[in-house]
Amino acid sequence: MSLAVTNIGELVTNDPHLGIVHDAAVVVDGDRIVWVGPSSRTPAADSRLDADGAAVLPGFVDSHAHLIFAGDRAAEFGARMAGAAYTGGGIRTTVAATRAASDDELRRNARRLVGEALRQGTTTIEIKSGYGLTVTEEARSLRLAAEIVEDTTYLGAHVVPAEYAGRADDYVDLVRGEMLDAAAPYATWADVFCERGAFDGDQARAILTAAAARGLGLRLHANQLGPGPGVRLAVELGAASADHCTHLDDADVDALASSDTVATLLPGAEFSTRSPYPDARRLLDAGATVALATDCNPGSSYTSSMPFCIALAVREMRMTPAEAVFAATAGGAAALRRTDLGIVRAGARADLIVLDAPSHLHLAYRPGVPLIRTILHDGVPQ
Amino acid sequence: MSLAVTNIGELVTNDPHLGIVHDAAVVVDGDRIVWVGPSSRTPAADSRLDADGAAVLPGFVDSHAHLIFAGDRAAEFGARMAGAAYTGGGIRTTVAATRAASDDELRRNARRLVGEALRQGTTTIEIKSGYGLTVTEEARSLRLAAEIVEDTTYLGAHVVPAEYAGRADDYVDLVRGEMLDAAAPYATWADVFCERGAFDGDQARAILTAAAARGLGLRLHANQLGPGPGVRLAVELGAASADHCTHLDDADVDALASSDTVATLLPGAEFSTRSPYPDARRLLDAGATVALATDCNPGSSYTSSMPFCIALAVREMRMTPAEAVFAATAGGAAALRRTDLGIVRAGARADLIVLDAPSHLHLAYRPGVPLIRTILHDGVPQ
Repeated sequence: MSLAVTNIGELVTNDPHLGIVHDAAVVVDGDRIVWVGPSSRTPAADSRLDADGAAVLPGFVDSHAHLIFAGDRAAEFGARMAGAAYTGGGIRTTVAATRAASDDELRRNARRLVGEALRQGTTTIEIKSGYGLTVTEEARSLRLAAEIVEDTTYLGAHVVPAEYAGRADDYVDLVRGEMLDAAAPYATWADVFCERGAFDGDQARAILTAAAARGLGLRLHANQLGPGPGVRLAVELGAASADHCTHLDDADVDALASSDTVATLLPGAEFSTRSPYPDARRLLDAGATVALATDCNPGSSYTSSMPFCIALAVREMRMTPAEAVFAATAGGAAALRRTDLGIVRAGARADLIVLDAPSHLHLAYRPGVPLIRTILHDGVPQ
Repeated sequence: MSLAVTNIGELVTNDPHLGIVHDAAVVVDGDRIVWVGPSSRTPAADSRLDADGAAVLPGFVDSHAHLIFAGDRAAEFGARMAGAAYTGGGIRTTVAATRAASDDELRRNARRLVGEALRQGTTTIEIKSGYGLTVTEEARSLRLAAEIVEDTTYLGAHVVPAEYAGRADDYVDLVRGEMLDAAAPYATWADVFCERGAFDGDQARAILTAAAARGLGLRLHANQLGPGPGVRLAVELGAASADHCTHLDDADVDALASSDTVATLLPGAEFSTRSPYPDARRLLDAGATVALATDCNPGSSYTSSMPFCIALAVREMRMTPAEAVFAATAGGAAALRRTDLGIVRAGARADLIVLDAPSHLHLAYRPGVPLIRTILHDGVPQ
């Protein structure tokens, strides 16, 4: 069954760069785009969706989310907004709730958030484990995540669990050994929270090297709370993405700019922890590839909204609206090493969003407003 | 026809203060609330809406919006985000587009935005004129606004139009004379943009005094772009609200705190003009009544989202989530001098929102996420 999306006032193709085409149409067949061109020359199709002059974009690709968890931390958020600092220590609260939850509770919560994200235009989302932190629980989190999405990330190295307090290296051995064995069948990626108070550079290297040997792709939480070795380690190991990138020195920026490791920025975390934002302008000017993602999680960034992250990127990180939209679509695809997502051309996945607005500019110009009118996900109108 | 909203996990009554009640129910009959109490004692009603443990709040009261206009200024927004300053000069762009638009175009655009706001939980919204700036056009704007909402504000003194360049006092005479005569039948309020580059304190006083003599309530755009006489003038004249309040000295804060003039803060404007936020903490600590509103307009704040303003108020203005929610409901009602809005008690208007969340905290904790599950507007489920 083919479907023609016609009368597109502004089509963002990302092919190349933002690749804006006016008065365009797109034809999809099954789950793939099969034709892109001027609306006046639209080929015949089985059905038609009139965009009525609106802007059409590739669906958002959210390459960083923590969706397998139970409970929330609204009270911790309230305390932080009253002045308490974010240290990441609250992760253990969610670990306890997640371990206590049934498969169905975890599944239902993750599906709720994936659906919420989809209604806001996110057609691809990555899901990390990291609230289990035992062999059984990490494997369970990833098994449930793999039921829901394609990109699942093993984050056994999220934080050292309470039962390993003072024995971090023993926990690292578990993470790179038995836990990795149990998690790998359900994971496409491996990730480490490389930060003071979590895992240092040597520990991160040991875990990621073991994961790469098992065929997992690599990503790394790096340089969020302070400077550190994370970004350079990510580049050295050929990771697809270094995520957060808030505290970078010149060598970090150079390393990212001269590699194909994407700098994934997560401004929702800085918003919700009242922290300084990463310097996107510096990364872009240096030539790094930047992605935007939500970091959706119950502790430090409980947003599922890519439009909100775009608005923050423009307001707070001095990205142009065009750069922010590119980062939220093509940037996310690059961070997942996908060439068929975040782009509108024949052969790409038929993931499109129709805005309730004439231009991509409105995603930043109209902050907080739900602007997603229609979503095509795998070619199916939602 | 009566309707019982039952199984409310957290009811925000604002009676008094945030007035949270757990395990509550509310019964409405026609457009009024008739009963509030424990869910277990809900009286019989013709129909029932199960809130399923969610949080229920009074609908948001957005006391400051500019919705009678045509066109948009997305390109100006893009330029400003690339470094250009906001001076208010772009208002004239919207004046030209508004004058050129038909009644139906203006009506359709305003209704679109009112509907968009309603879907985000705004059950009361004020609409200002101010993009007409001739006798005929200001009267037309207010006539159209009065078709849609109860609270309409005459803002002929938005900016001195190009045809009066160098003759500001002549324009002031028009605004307080013939234009006021034409506008007053459709307006409940009068407002002046009292700011360097717009109208000074003497001009504002002359216009507002004339409007008060015609029976209009008073409000004032004050101290947005720099210090000035606006806030103290608003208090002196007994205005219901001084709006923006970004640049205040101690005397301004004291004046607000010792009056019943509400300080209406509009953080969407600071977000979209990349300006410093007002100091809500100082106003609250001094004892002033604070309202939050969107300032929805195509130039400096094209958001219709009260939840977004709440999230900004908490992140950027150090309001607690409770203070922000109160300001977006009861605060807005006070700014419109209404005692039957923004409150959940017998006799109040049956404007309620059911969140897709267990607590009002989530409005700030989950920024950018559409969290409004169900809306009762004038007692009618939307």
